[in-house]
Amino acid sequence: MTARYGRCGPSTGAVEYLASVTDDLMALVRTERDVRAICELKYRYLRTLDSKDWDGFEQCFVPEATGDYNGLVFDDRTALVSYMRENLGEGLVTLHQAHHPEIEVAGDEATGRWYLYDRVIVEAFSFMLEGGAFYTDRYLRTPDGWRVLHTGYRRTFEATYNLGDLPGFKLTGPGVHTHK
Amino acid sequence: MTARYGRCGPSTGAVEYLASVTDDLMALVRTERDVRAICELKYRYLRTLDSKDWDGFEQCFVPEATGDYNGLVFDDRTALVSYMRENLGEGLVTLHQAHHPEIEVAGDEATGRWYLYDRVIVEAFSFMLEGGAFYTDRYLRTPDGWRVLHTGYRRTFEATYNLGDLPGFKLTGPGVHTHK
Amino acid sequence: MTARYGRCGPSTGAVEYLASVTDDLMALVRTERDVRAICELKYRYLRTLDSKDWDGFEQCFVPEATGDYNGLVFDDRTALVSYMRENLGEGLVTLHQAHHPEIEVAGDEATGRWYLYDRVIVEAFSFMLEGGAFYTDRYLRTPDGWRVLHTGYRRTFEATYNLGDLPGFKLTGPGVHTHK
Repeated sequence: MTARYGRCGPSTGAVEYLASVTDDLMALVRTERDVRAICELKYRYLRTLDSKDWDGFEQCFVPEATGDYNGLVFDDRTALVSYMRENLGEGLVTLHQAHHPEIEVAGDEATGRWYLYDRVIVEAFSFMLEGGAFYTDRYLRTPDGWRVLHTGYRRTFEATYNLGDLPGFKLTGPGVHTHK
Repeated sequence: MTARYGRCGPSTGAVEYLASVTDDLMALVRTERDVRAICELKYRYLRTLDSKDWDGFEQCFVPEATGDYNGLVFDDRTALVSYMRENLGEGLVTLHQAHHPEIEVAGDEATGRWYLYDRVIVEAFSFMLEGGAFYTDRYLRTPDGWRVLHTGYRRTFEATYNLGDLPGFKLTGPGVHTHK
Repeated sequence: MTARYGRCGPSTGAVEYLASVTDDLMALVRTERDVRAICELKYRYLRTLDSKDWDGFEQCFVPEATGDYNGLVFDDRTALVSYMRENLGEGLVTLHQAHHPEIEVAGDEATGRWYLYDRVIVEAFSFMLEGGAFYTDRYLRTPDGWRVLHTGYRRTFEATYNLGDLPGFKLTGPGVHTHK
């Protein structure tokens, strides 16, 4: 910092310079906080999804939110949440982990890239799926915090297994632990 | 910033306002740094675990640290570290990767949520395990940096494989690479 | 903050103290921004790798960049990028996800640790590989942003599968989705 002071106390210029640097700093810090808040929103979205906490899941989106999961399109939050609630019910285990956040904040809007790894296991159908995908999301700042405005991904690959090929495969559901 | 200056130099009010904003900023920045330090602690905990660096692993915890891995309970650090040292020795490959940090700092304490993906391979027993879990941790600020006060998770799923079902499965241990 | 003000307006000392705190703050905030920028560089590097966007991949490195993937050594960017372009072409699906960033910034250089999970699938050879590794990277600040100066990892494990053991295995490539 190059502020200069006169002999008789700080000049108005020095304080104005300091005020301007402080404004810049506040903007930078707010961006870092926004980025972290958006990451936490994404984590809550995926945590409630995999926990089948559909009310919590719904609250991650604004009502007008849209979705596009590689062509599986939703025009609003109600359609998106209803689909998940109906298709990812009990008897179906999911893991959705989003990595590599690249978040850009512009005022009250933001965009996010993510790299998904996901897994679906439906033992009744001897079915297991795993895949990777790149997400491109849009977020909106609301009075209650950041919310998802659009979420969508494009698959990098998707593989499915017939669990009949793995007779020794055993699945235990939430809250079970084999280490004990 | 709305600081106002008098005709004859900056007012005491302007500087006091600036000092108060600077205090707020310092608190915000410190929180971001604490969050990152806690993430790095968790990464060191899992890196030393998967590297079987038990001394480094032990140093991630305060002595009174407790653990609860879905019912596998430890009452202090000694019990937790001893269990890992005895049960995750050579001949057993582990991968523990923690995702989706949701960290909240309150003074010298903090809480953390994480979404684990883990894998255990014991070739001698033709055994492979993979699973997901949500961690709920508590952390303590010490003179040497943040340390784990409690770590625990609840499984979302756990699957085990009999490697006898996969006769073409080949495992190579640390430091081996098939690309070359 | 303990700044003191005289009766007749702020003292030079108070403003100097504030300027010094503001300098410290700016340094702290810049470090957080650098850490995030380096993470985003790593994510771009892996995103362009798995997308086979070789021009974008090349731009993540300085020309003199070196690589050491557990003994698979490259002496400059040209050698590294050429190898990837030739060996990770169409017909080969890759997933490289880097977790657990531990980044240290020192001026215009930085180091980074990461914990990789990766997967390679080559259906034509009934081949699937998965593994873990710890990366140790070095980064350089350039006029165009941070770039990779050195990247290298050491395997924690590597497992290969013969997809002939899994006759029900089905792979679909980029942009395909079975949910619909």
